Amino acid sequence: MRISDSALIKVAKKYQTPLYVYDFDGIKKNYQEFKQAFYGRKSIIAYAIKANSNFAIMQMLSKEGCGADCVSINEVKLALKAGVKKYNIVFSGVAKSYEEIKQALELDILLINVESAFELEDIIKIAKEQNKKARISIRLNPDIEPKTHPYISTGLSENKFGVNATEARAMYILAKKSEYLEPIGLHTHIGSQLTDIKPIQDSLQIASDFAGELIALGIDLKFFNVGGGLGIQYDDEKTIPLYDYAQSIFKALGDKDLTVICEPGRSIVGNNGVLLNSVVGEKLNHKTRFVIVDGAMNDLLRIPLYNAYHKIALLDASDESKMSFDNDYTNAKGEKCNVVGPVCESGDFFAKGINLPQTKKGDIVCVYSAGAYGFCMASNYNQRVKPAEVAIYKGENGKLQDKLVRKRESFEDLLNNQIM
Amino acid sequence: MRISDSALIKVAKKYQTPLYVYDFDGIKKNYQEFKQAFYGRKSIIAYAIKANSNFAIMQMLSKEGCGADCVSINEVKLALKAGVKKYNIVFSGVAKSYEEIKQALELDILLINVESAFELEDIIKIAKEQNKKARISIRLNPDIEPKTHPYISTGLSENKFGVNATEARAMYILAKKSEYLEPIGLHTHIGSQLTDIKPIQDSLQIASDFAGELIALGIDLKFFNVGGGLGIQYDDEKTIPLYDYAQSIFKALGDKDLTVICEPGRSIVGNNGVLLNSVVGEKLNHKTRFVIVDGAMNDLLRIPLYNAYHKIALLDASDESKMSFDNDYTNAKGEKCNVVGPVCESGDFFAKGINLPQTKKGDIVCVYSAGAYGFCMASNYNQRVKPAEVAIYKGENGKLQDKLVRKRESFEDLLNNQIM
Repeated sequence: MRISDSALIKVAKKYQTPLYVYDFDGIKKNYQEFKQAFYGRKSIIAYAIKANSNFAIMQMLSKEGCGADCVSINEVKLALKAGVKKYNIVFSGVAKSYEEIKQALELDILLINVESAFELEDIIKIAKEQNKKARISIRLNPDIEPKTHPYISTGLSENKFGVNATEARAMYILAKKSEYLEPIGLHTHIGSQLTDIKPIQDSLQIASDFAGELIALGIDLKFFNVGGGLGIQYDDEKTIPLYDYAQSIFKALGDKDLTVICEPGRSIVGNNGVLLNSVVGEKLNHKTRFVIVDGAMNDLLRIPLYNAYHKIALLDASDESKMSFDNDYTNAKGEKCNVVGPVCESGDFFAKGINLPQTKKGDIVCVYSAGAYGFCMASNYNQRVKPAEVAIYKGENGKLQDKLVRKRESFEDLLNNQIM
Repeated sequence: MRISDSALIKVAKKYQTPLYVYDFDGIKKNYQEFKQAFYGRKSIIAYAIKANSNFAIMQMLSKEGCGADCVSINEVKLALKAGVKKYNIVFSGVAKSYEEIKQALELDILLINVESAFELEDIIKIAKEQNKKARISIRLNPDIEPKTHPYISTGLSENKFGVNATEARAMYILAKKSEYLEPIGLHTHIGSQLTDIKPIQDSLQIASDFAGELIALGIDLKFFNVGGGLGIQYDDEKTIPLYDYAQSIFKALGDKDLTVICEPGRSIVGNNGVLLNSVVGEKLNHKTRFVIVDGAMNDLLRIPLYNAYHKIALLDASDESKMSFDNDYTNAKGEKCNVVGPVCESGDFFAKGINLPQTKKGDIVCVYSAGAYGFCMASNYNQRVKPAEVAIYKGENGKLQDKLVRKRESFEDLLNNQIM
């Protein structure tokens, strides 16, 4: 996100804080780069809605031809509403309800990623009721250590996701025989925020070999779903170049003529979003300096939940040319402090022991890399309303425009389902 | 919560799952026991709304004469709507906004708990604008190790809460001189889920000594706010008897004629709520058995966030007389398993390595001690709707009744503030 500090401050004052701000051009560009990396191969880039389910983002991506990776029927419905074509929608998840499967089949999306034997049975039953053939892929758990936070690793045998090769094989054979199933894809996904290509390559090879086996068994595979999970740079992580990633997929696939489905989420939106917060005040408790802002853990949960690191800076309006992220914020000037929010627990912090210049009430503190797993995990803890969301993009006149893309919640919204 | 398994199963089937169920009689009883423990002393039991902000719970408690401990202006408004008397409402929080303070003064609640010097300045300014005297207490940070999870410890100098004695003294002197402030209380609170009385006693003694000093300085103190934080039994923790707790307060106070304000939250509602989940299916990934249910981390965040332990049982309808919690669930029959939800990350679990009997689709898995910090921390992650809430209570005919006290969210609710 390369938008000047003064532009961000202006937006913060206009829409109030805490505020999520997204670089829509950056999101579009990231999608196009994915598409480009798969140039010349049949591919579906299925955006992982769980990373950020803002409607305007999905609408923009769907106009570009983007598909959707959904993990609940509500995500499927949202994708369709946003204009995503049903033949570009896949539906994953370890615990789809009977009702969700029913609706997914009625909505005629591309396929359902099956994650267990009991789910396959449910699908057969429902497809039979609806008198149709359900298109499915099966999620193979490759038992690969993805080297990420244990909460977001998904491809280990000790994880709940997918099935092992033996079970998958039996399921494909059953599916082939069933008059209500059409096994057209193979799926694998080992985790999120991956920064090491080796485990990805290993799992791709396992999946490709397995696909070869299935084809030899007469399964008419059409889709090779490589999942998502490409990491982004929160701090100084080395990330995986898209070109290398795509080449790894092609190499693993060899001459198998399969359409690649890729499910990026964080890598599309993560670094194209920030959370803007206003300083409420500073205090010194004994020797600890606290910069207290109006945003909190209910707005951005990643930090206490995963003990995640996000770059944080005090925006500086004095220099019009200064771009966010031009500086090396890890060596920012100023004294050590903790950046904390209003929520009544010590788990409510954005950073501990970082350097920030002296702040005053109303200054804007920017939390970077908040485009993914930010708003979508927000809650109303402490009866706080969820923040607004704003899009920034280059208008037709070449100048930056801003647009509200989600209204701030109101006190009345909090009463919505209460019974009074 | 002593409601038979078969009654809970009936409620689960009636209202669907995931479902929060509260024992309203138990909640009322817990409040009355608090009131009883302070019998003969002037006291306000101010229920900590942040623990569970269900409107019907607050309404019931307010009818009993309960006050409210609020940490946002929305909580203040909710308390007032639920019938809590304004002179029983206190407002805490480290980062109250200018607007929140303004509204709190307009609403004329009992007092504002001031947590920093900059906040005191804001209050003076706003009271001056409104041409009134703001009633305040100041939160003393006693620098006491509460022996609880670091995320919910609040009384250490390294925590963001309150001010130290030196600063508090200066603030009281300033407040006494100000024509816009009325310093009527002293507040201290060292954390949540406290199970050891020693740090509480230490902090009470520090606060009482400090109150004595303030009185000697001519500050007309009326309220001694001891905070909340009494722990409950999630597993086999020893908890602090209410009698001992109250006696500690009286002992610390000595002959000071101050009204005690006590802010229980978890200890009122925690063990009077459960989260009911339906089994979606079971699977075995290599050697790990997963019991997959329809509730998830978005419904109950405590487990991944604090690595918290909650008792979990498979409800058994076969024995009408069997009461939840009659059994020693930690030694439940059955094979080892992980209880996990539908959310697409490995952080989505309710338990790891517990024993549960074999389950089948539709069986009800009960997560106990979910009355506090359950629904209030729920999110829409993965575009999941927040669960419904149901009250159980003994009706006039002596039989158990159930009543919906919060509607389940709908897909349409999720679109509420999206801009389409």
